[in-house]
Amino acid sequence: MIEVEEILKKYSEEVDLEIKNVLGTLEPSTLYDSSTHLIRAGGKKFRPALAVLSCQTVGGKTEKALKTAAALELVHTFSLIHDDIMDNDDTRRGMKSVHKVWGTPLAILAGDTLFAKAYESIINTADDNIAYEQVLDALKILVDSCVKICEGQAVDMQFEETFEVSEEQYMNMIYKKTAALIAAATTSGAIIGGATNIEIQAMEKYGKNIGLAFQIQDDYIDLTGEDIGKPVGSDLVEGKKTIMVIHALEKANKEDHDRLIELLSVNDESIKDEAMILLEKYGAIDYAKNIAQKHVDLAKEALETFEDSMAKDSLIAVADFVLNRNK
Amino acid sequence: MIEVEEILKKYSEEVDLEIKNVLGTLEPSTLYDSSTHLIRAGGKKFRPALAVLSCQTVGGKTEKALKTAAALELVHTFSLIHDDIMDNDDTRRGMKSVHKVWGTPLAILAGDTLFAKAYESIINTADDNIAYEQVLDALKILVDSCVKICEGQAVDMQFEETFEVSEEQYMNMIYKKTAALIAAATTSGAIIGGATNIEIQAMEKYGKNIGLAFQIQDDYIDLTGEDIGKPVGSDLVEGKKTIMVIHALEKANKEDHDRLIELLSVNDESIKDEAMILLEKYGAIDYAKNIAQKHVDLAKEALETFEDSMAKDSLIAVADFVLNRNK
Repeated sequence: MIEVEEILKKYSEEVDLEIKNVLGTLEPSTLYDSSTHLIRAGGKKFRPALAVLSCQTVGGKTEKALKTAAALELVHTFSLIHDDIMDNDDTRRGMKSVHKVWGTPLAILAGDTLFAKAYESIINTADDNIAYEQVLDALKILVDSCVKICEGQAVDMQFEETFEVSEEQYMNMIYKKTAALIAAATTSGAIIGGATNIEIQAMEKYGKNIGLAFQIQDDYIDLTGEDIGKPVGSDLVEGKKTIMVIHALEKANKEDHDRLIELLSVNDESIKDEAMILLEKYGAIDYAKNIAQKHVDLAKEALETFEDSMAKDSLIAVADFVLNRNK
Repeated sequence: MIEVEEILKKYSEEVDLEIKNVLGTLEPSTLYDSSTHLIRAGGKKFRPALAVLSCQTVGGKTEKALKTAAALELVHTFSLIHDDIMDNDDTRRGMKSVHKVWGTPLAILAGDTLFAKAYESIINTADDNIAYEQVLDALKILVDSCVKICEGQAVDMQFEETFEVSEEQYMNMIYKKTAALIAAATTSGAIIGGATNIEIQAMEKYGKNIGLAFQIQDDYIDLTGEDIGKPVGSDLVEGKKTIMVIHALEKANKEDHDRLIELLSVNDESIKDEAMILLEKYGAIDYAKNIAQKHVDLAKEALETFEDSMAKDSLIAVADFVLNRNK
């Protein structure tokens, strides 16, 4: 059995080294320290591992994918830093968020710096014997995903103002906010590895679907999990429109529908238990799990086009891991 | 005589069209509206014009440079949006700043979106019959300048905390914060136009030096100008360490030195006249003008390597314009 935690760790050091290389020395030291704060805190290194495994699955060498893998982690970290400012989140990865330590102005700059460095890291893959056209294709993928992240975050913020969110709107939002970057990891890894167009499309499908499942599982863990570095049920307290909430609101009778909206509008810990009962009553949690499972199945289906390999087996294991993880 | 305002306007429409094309449709509409707010407000289009003129000066066609020109304006606009958040500036280009209209979260996203779109615009130059290697070189230049902008802004924020700023530190800060992007405009325009390495270096020298003069002139205009969309002398009120202030502090006797620091620490309109008298007493304003003129001369010297052309004459005129403009 493949231990996914091991897979994720396997390239972590090499990716960290690439990140260190591309960051170089930033001046002043406060900019360097704030930019590297979350990177030093660790993190799953999920996106870099996907980039490397996707490169390997199409027959590319690991070394070729490391700078691209670093770029994915840099974009991910940039988006976390800016998201934490926007959402006014105080903690991240068990530490204070960047703007809580260095203030909002420097946190904005830290994010911007990592954003630029991510592109630099991909541009530098041209030094690793990768054709310029492939480098540009990978850059294009990264740019597209960055625009989608911004769009997804903006839509997510709009959701805060309304309970009129359909499942389709929610899926589109999490595609942009979360799945697009995960798809960028698998797709750019494949491009750098020399994939054909059909292989690139398959990796896009794989990445997109595990990305969707990943976000649904995140929402599920928030409801049910432990050890997530924030209080369980905080999404309910904040009235977040997760797929569970959207499903329950859609299925509930008028009384329960209105009550659930009432509870989600209170913004207090005390509503958790009753809200949870309502979600359970309408099978919202099982429903979410099923949707996530469907996307994991689609992801694994997309891999059928590739020849068997250790790397492909790892991608399959990662797809299953997305739903089995509890943090 | 070449009318520089005419030159700047000349490509403005074409650049706006490229910006519109690369932005496409952003969702939700609030993200599109906030992202395009400052672009709709106009602006000098200084950097795009430099990119086009630099391309022409090395023998490249205008059309080749338009997407790069658009990218420069997008990066400039992104940095204005984020700077206004950091500096808590309420107005820009005679309008409310982006975060004042849409709030900080959306303003952060608007900046991030334009940042990503800037890279997309350069990547798209590959469609204009430009070699992939040149596209990547132009991207590298843009990335480097973006990192420098972040570093320069971070150093500028540090300057707020101290009066111990040397002229060298100030020049290094404005190089990063302002001149690096202007140099990126001339350099990337030259690259896209097919310049040799020597020509690229000359354009770097030209851009860097007019960029330094540009920022010094900005500080000069703040002291003496009209029609700048903000109150004259606001830098003094805010206690900003301009080259004038740094020079006066360096040259002043102990009494005047301490008094000037006292005045610059008050943060009130009432200190303007006395602070101005102290700057005049130590020739700080003439000194700044001379330094700026020296950089304009260096910029024009850098152009000597190029054959005579309309475009080269325009670049010379732009260099003079940098010091003659009053807004």
